[in-house]
Amino acid sequence: MPMGTNHPGLGSYNQAVVLETIHAADGISRVQIAGRTGLTAQTVSVIVRRLLGAGLVREHGTAPSTGGKPRTILRIDPDAGYAIGIHFDPAEITVVLANLAGVPVRTCRRSLTAGLGPPSVIAAMVQAARSLLAAAQLPDARVLGVGLACPGPLDADGTMHAPPQLSDWDRVPVRALLEEAIGFPVGFDNDATAAAIGERWAGAGRSVPSYAYLYLGTGIGGGLVLDHQIYRGRSLGAAEFGHLTVAPGGAECHCGNRGCLEAECRPAAIEAAHAARTGHRLSHAAICAAFLSGDAEAVETIRGVTVRLADAAVSIVNLFDVDLLLIGGPAMREAAGAFRDAMAEAVNTRAVNRRLHRVRVEIAPMGADAAAIGAASLVFHSAYAPTLPG
Amino acid sequence: MPMGTNHPGLGSYNQAVVLETIHAADGISRVQIAGRTGLTAQTVSVIVRRLLGAGLVREHGTAPSTGGKPRTILRIDPDAGYAIGIHFDPAEITVVLANLAGVPVRTCRRSLTAGLGPPSVIAAMVQAARSLLAAAQLPDARVLGVGLACPGPLDADGTMHAPPQLSDWDRVPVRALLEEAIGFPVGFDNDATAAAIGERWAGAGRSVPSYAYLYLGTGIGGGLVLDHQIYRGRSLGAAEFGHLTVAPGGAECHCGNRGCLEAECRPAAIEAAHAARTGHRLSHAAICAAFLSGDAEAVETIRGVTVRLADAAVSIVNLFDVDLLLIGGPAMREAAGAFRDAMAEAVNTRAVNRRLHRVRVEIAPMGADAAAIGAASLVFHSAYAPTLPG
Repeated sequence: MPMGTNHPGLGSYNQAVVLETIHAADGISRVQIAGRTGLTAQTVSVIVRRLLGAGLVREHGTAPSTGGKPRTILRIDPDAGYAIGIHFDPAEITVVLANLAGVPVRTCRRSLTAGLGPPSVIAAMVQAARSLLAAAQLPDARVLGVGLACPGPLDADGTMHAPPQLSDWDRVPVRALLEEAIGFPVGFDNDATAAAIGERWAGAGRSVPSYAYLYLGTGIGGGLVLDHQIYRGRSLGAAEFGHLTVAPGGAECHCGNRGCLEAECRPAAIEAAHAARTGHRLSHAAICAAFLSGDAEAVETIRGVTVRLADAAVSIVNLFDVDLLLIGGPAMREAAGAFRDAMAEAVNTRAVNRRLHRVRVEIAPMGADAAAIGAASLVFHSAYAPTLPG
Repeated sequence: MPMGTNHPGLGSYNQAVVLETIHAADGISRVQIAGRTGLTAQTVSVIVRRLLGAGLVREHGTAPSTGGKPRTILRIDPDAGYAIGIHFDPAEITVVLANLAGVPVRTCRRSLTAGLGPPSVIAAMVQAARSLLAAAQLPDARVLGVGLACPGPLDADGTMHAPPQLSDWDRVPVRALLEEAIGFPVGFDNDATAAAIGERWAGAGRSVPSYAYLYLGTGIGGGLVLDHQIYRGRSLGAAEFGHLTVAPGGAECHCGNRGCLEAECRPAAIEAAHAARTGHRLSHAAICAAFLSGDAEAVETIRGVTVRLADAAVSIVNLFDVDLLLIGGPAMREAAGAFRDAMAEAVNTRAVNRRLHRVRVEIAPMGADAAAIGAASLVFHSAYAPTLPG
């Protein structure tokens, strides 16, 4: 059963709507907030007073009004709070310190030796985070919390269940371990969803009602915002775009299926396909660089990848009917533009509803730090984003 | 921007939550409603008084209480209102008269000659609906409205945009035409979404938070309930499961893509595949009947279909992470059990999150009338189902 809504929850929902409206606008007045949210002028006024009192929002000059007194402009105070975002990738950890506007003010990256166990990895995270805080001379009291982005599958408690590249991390309560070690509240999500939330808070997803994020990393994942809400599915397992079947009966995937997008298009698969076709074993980075320089063999290898991505994009648009498809993550490299162009062409020539609704395809602007910035924005998102009672 | 929520909308949301809770339960007390919805006892009491006053709910005996006074049991009054549901399929129209419990009390079916234009089809719908009302001796005042289920694409006004089997029905405002001709308010949705809503109101989708409905008819469509809400996408184009690419580079689909589930598995495609492999041209109905009798060639043809459906089911579960996958529609026929078994086996051995979350696969119980009953329940759904402000 859906749950009913008692009034206290509603108040905080409206507060989050107002805060997000101010965050998304580049300066906005109380009257404009009322117009955009459908809330009454009086409700907006009460909420804005509360946000000013909490220091989250600042008054910032006035705008000319059409008659009557000039309107005061409101903006988020980016310095009102900070969050630490940690992206745990099997090969490295990336830690950012971000302000309330979602801007990373410090970043650091540490390689991880293969086979490290939870105590060593958690210690490395804590040490990296502490060094960022020291370098920024930021006292703990200014930090709202820590966000952790991990490879899935994860359960609702923040326990990892043997992700593909970390098969001995089975039933590791990583969220609880980090929270105990670091001394801040820790929120978590899978890496791809974190990246999608980061784009919503500070990137290309701002104010977009519905979008899908296709994340290309060591594996392939995804995140979804549907009707302004993060959609995670019943067991945090939605948006597994890497496990869309794009080559039925194709290469075996670690997940137990065959022909998954991830099994066909992750960096290791691109390397294997290139070697099988040409006899030359090149790294993914080298293939992407050769592609950019026009090398015919690399062009052919990348073309095979774009065909799969284009098919996946059409299926995603036909199933979710989103406004925007973002692609991002560290495995995009020099082929990013080719991926975007092939997907954009496909969704606007082959998707069922193309005549009713044009879909944008864009490269997510946050690049390789997307998941870490997204992890930091998890803290703001859980504190401030409007989430309807479910 | 998400919209804020002023209090009047909230009241009707809570009323709908209470009504749906009563509808889903087989007799329930006020205290139990409060427990299930999270609403206060006082709020539940006020809402129930309103629903009793409107005649939508009845008191129905008492249940023993754990001490204190016995609790009054509440039920929906199925006779409190009726709706007409019309399913417009290119080959026939099905019309049902359903009570508030979603039970069809009368049904009729009319074949349509190919090539009929909008005026003739609308007239046939009106005549069929009127004959049902006359047979049931039901005055117009007892009818809450008409629901119309059509093949998509549809836009938000209820205008048809050249669906595949009705390519000359382009920009036909079918909702408005029917409303003018029939004299009741007309709600609409595409056939597959209507069937999914019907299952939510009166079938296998009752109280299930998230499910996907795969609809097999002349074409293949789908419907989605995610976190208790119907998910339609930005242009009513979500859940087009028929246009999931399951055979990359495969048969050309009318939609402009290749290898769509619909292009590979709709009845006409099954007939073509059977003829190509065996040299015998059989109807879809004959192939399904032969399959049931164990005919080796038909078994092989249907096996090809189950492989595609199983791949599609894995992709759907990996993207939406639902509790339940329903399959239904007129093209299921004698192969329904084989389809269900193949999909159930696939999602529970090949979906990424199978260890965290078992997914049920079931044959939708409403059968060939699903879209028409669903169309009727559109009327109740739009009047009574909880829909959060978007």
